[in-house]
Amino acid sequence: MAVKRRASAADLANRQREISISEFFTKNRHLLGFDSPSKALLTAVKEAVDNSLDACEEAGILPEIKVELDALAEDRYMVTVEDNGPGIIRKQVPKIFGKLLYGSKFHRLKQSRGQQGIGISAAGMYAQLTTGKPVLIITRTGASREPHQLEVAIDTKRNAPSVLKDKEIEWDKKHGTRVTMELEAVYRKGQHSVDEYMVQTAMANPHARIEYRTPKGDEVTYERSTEELPVEAREIKPHPYGVELGILARMLRDSKSRTVLAALKSDFSRVSDNVGRSILKEAGIPEKRSPRHVASREVESLFRAIPKVKIMAPPTNCLSPIGEDAILSGMKKLVPADWYVARTRPPSVYRGNPFQVEVGLAYGGALESDGLARVIRYANRVPLLYQAGGCGITKAVLTTSWRGYGLQQARGALPSGPLVIFVHIASVWVPFTSESKEAIAHYPELLKDVRLALQECGRKLSAHIRRGKREADEHRKRTYIAKYLPYVGDALQEILSLSPKKRDQVVEQLTNMLERSRKM
Amino acid sequence: MAVKRRASAADLANRQREISISEFFTKNRHLLGFDSPSKALLTAVKEAVDNSLDACEEAGILPEIKVELDALAEDRYMVTVEDNGPGIIRKQVPKIFGKLLYGSKFHRLKQSRGQQGIGISAAGMYAQLTTGKPVLIITRTGASREPHQLEVAIDTKRNAPSVLKDKEIEWDKKHGTRVTMELEAVYRKGQHSVDEYMVQTAMANPHARIEYRTPKGDEVTYERSTEELPVEAREIKPHPYGVELGILARMLRDSKSRTVLAALKSDFSRVSDNVGRSILKEAGIPEKRSPRHVASREVESLFRAIPKVKIMAPPTNCLSPIGEDAILSGMKKLVPADWYVARTRPPSVYRGNPFQVEVGLAYGGALESDGLARVIRYANRVPLLYQAGGCGITKAVLTTSWRGYGLQQARGALPSGPLVIFVHIASVWVPFTSESKEAIAHYPELLKDVRLALQECGRKLSAHIRRGKREADEHRKRTYIAKYLPYVGDALQEILSLSPKKRDQVVEQLTNMLERSRKM
Repeated sequence: MAVKRRASAADLANRQREISISEFFTKNRHLLGFDSPSKALLTAVKEAVDNSLDACEEAGILPEIKVELDALAEDRYMVTVEDNGPGIIRKQVPKIFGKLLYGSKFHRLKQSRGQQGIGISAAGMYAQLTTGKPVLIITRTGASREPHQLEVAIDTKRNAPSVLKDKEIEWDKKHGTRVTMELEAVYRKGQHSVDEYMVQTAMANPHARIEYRTPKGDEVTYERSTEELPVEAREIKPHPYGVELGILARMLRDSKSRTVLAALKSDFSRVSDNVGRSILKEAGIPEKRSPRHVASREVESLFRAIPKVKIMAPPTNCLSPIGEDAILSGMKKLVPADWYVARTRPPSVYRGNPFQVEVGLAYGGALESDGLARVIRYANRVPLLYQAGGCGITKAVLTTSWRGYGLQQARGALPSGPLVIFVHIASVWVPFTSESKEAIAHYPELLKDVRLALQECGRKLSAHIRRGKREADEHRKRTYIAKYLPYVGDALQEILSLSPKKRDQVVEQLTNMLERSRKM
Repeated sequence: MAVKRRASAADLANRQREISISEFFTKNRHLLGFDSPSKALLTAVKEAVDNSLDACEEAGILPEIKVELDALAEDRYMVTVEDNGPGIIRKQVPKIFGKLLYGSKFHRLKQSRGQQGIGISAAGMYAQLTTGKPVLIITRTGASREPHQLEVAIDTKRNAPSVLKDKEIEWDKKHGTRVTMELEAVYRKGQHSVDEYMVQTAMANPHARIEYRTPKGDEVTYERSTEELPVEAREIKPHPYGVELGILARMLRDSKSRTVLAALKSDFSRVSDNVGRSILKEAGIPEKRSPRHVASREVESLFRAIPKVKIMAPPTNCLSPIGEDAILSGMKKLVPADWYVARTRPPSVYRGNPFQVEVGLAYGGALESDGLARVIRYANRVPLLYQAGGCGITKAVLTTSWRGYGLQQARGALPSGPLVIFVHIASVWVPFTSESKEAIAHYPELLKDVRLALQECGRKLSAHIRRGKREADEHRKRTYIAKYLPYVGDALQEILSLSPKKRDQVVEQLTNMLERSRKM
């Protein structure tokens, strides 16, 4: 065998090194949504706005968000996002903005925009990487508290924050947070633009008031169309059907309960005394056993026992869907169609995670009629503007047969026609295809539900399209006849020598008859 | 403003927590390619085979890989991958298999299959998560060394390995590594299957000999079609055009050189004395200044100066393309078409990273003629079987107008016809859309080059298709006439009363004339 030694095992060993998570994402910044200057601008805004909306809703405050873009050079922008949220207590600021993988949303099951503890610190890291400038944060947690102003940088080799400035300042806001970042970026119009993101965000968040100032100085304000906060999403415990063997083992190891039965009941949702007992019976593990003393072989039989026991689906008050009315009013406000329909599916479950699909269709009107349909994707109320091709939502739309609903559709392509398709997936854990949260992974359960919702709306659409055709014909006929009724009237007047009044009555009656016949 | 307090800043603060990288990927395991049991099987095999091929090539050994799948239950498999590589020295084994973000390939610029230090440890983590079983490794670094056998688990909370067993054993192999993992998985046939991955891997690695045993016990062996190792890819330094401000600042801070000029020359590729001088002159920084004493404002002017100076493109010996001949022989061996073409583009650069695009087309023959074309995607010789929709390569194929080349193509869809499209992107840093390395990010420079390569091959294809049509007609005519020549001969014989010999000569001459006329 041809062996020309290049490197030995020892050589290879000497090259082995540890990689810091921030180094990893610095090199892989497209994973975070910073692969192009125009996308970077959008991502930075998105991460900050997501956090603001989440914070407001968690604190029960109707969001007032202000987004300002300033062009410092053609390839350098300043992004400022200000909210009226609860503010951030001083001690937390550095880690939230200067450390990747740090946050409040990762270790819980509850619908929220953020879920990874990466977004905003990643934006800060990108800003620093491209301009060397730290993130500037002003925050205040209440009228009685002093506003703080901090400058936070991130030490990528250690993935740790370093605070450059920290002082109390004057601020007119009673409570809220204001984040400013300076980054290499480009401002563009179009489907992937910050402008578009703002429109779509307003569409899915009718309870938020959003002021937006473009780099050109144009100011747009999206007034809220409801004073109602979305129902608060509650945190839930994991459902037994979704747990993995390894996780189950760790949960038992870490459990504070005295018995394994108590552990199952307290650490999982929907595990009643009975359910717990039957699982343990099935697994052949004594209820009183301490969870710390369940051998790994037993954990496996416990794991195998769970699916054999009938367990109620997880509670769904961890979800906060937009709702059909809100979707309709949002679309009517921002999509120039002449027919709309919306459908919120009942919640379902994948891997023990509750999720809920909502779909809206807007058709006709001023929408471009010779082109592919436009798909607007949302996850937990956040618009997804990139990676449409890789998104499970797109897949679901492509694999729905739209011909059946009276639309053109080429093989492997989107349907064509004056159609906008709105899809929202709400979940306690949205499986994104990358940290940039731009596309949803192809989980069969998710795709299935999206398809079902599309079909429900699609049937209504085809009815509308058919009716549209029929009515058009009807109308043509009717106006045709109607045109001649007056002459008929004159003719009758002559033949039956009617008074002008009588003639008009007859004409009117005939018209009504025609009207009725059409209705039937 | 409606304020119904839900959570205060303090409440929110109490929920803030650190997230370990392994916890993050455990919850986000679809990012690593483990979102479904069938995909998990493929990903585990892929990560192990990638490492084996990389190790063999780095050590200058012609790869002999053995892949074995064993079904332990319908949802549980044992994956074993054995190679004849250089082996791994004992001390490195735990971290390589039991720690995410640890490896030899992240911190260098050189084409290799692995680049993140995540793959194989992630596979081990998934195995442990779903079956509780550790990874079993046997490795030996040479005939004179003892083979070692280790069992490595990963402590996800600390992202650190824990070694469960470690002993010296008997092993007949002189050098190499054997990895065994037990995981929840499903074995499927079809386009996303391990079988398909094996075929495509063989196609792009004609220098490797691969033995593959399916869970059903079928054994397939892909013999190597060349005894030549690919040219060794050399490690290069970053190119100034690709560096970011933040990275530049850090490089200067960490530089060991005494002067900033020396730093530029030694830490970057293609920075000669002259280039270095003109950059510093442009930036207004004295050459003799210590790199550690360049103020951040100066770093920025240095950063701005770089693009103003003409610098030679980076060296491309860091790349190791497959080559047109190897692509052709690979396709001819495994794709049942009757016409083939391949093109290896000259290297180009994105963000200072050299990359090279290779394209092959296979057309006609036994390929299905009424369906969409099939796209086979590779990155650094590794087949990409998932997330086709989200991949820049697919985008490039979709946005190439195939009608011009004599194929059907619906708007927004792939071309249709008996066509297989082979695309390979080789680079020192492939920008994947997620850690699972299934799809390539939409970097314009990459897409452009793929499109150019597709067009070059497309033009050849259209010529072939046109010629095909013409020849078919020709052939019909000719055989038609040829059929009657003997009778013409007989007729002439009668009319001119020729001898049988003369008649045959005449017929032959006529046939030749016909032959010639066709050639013209």
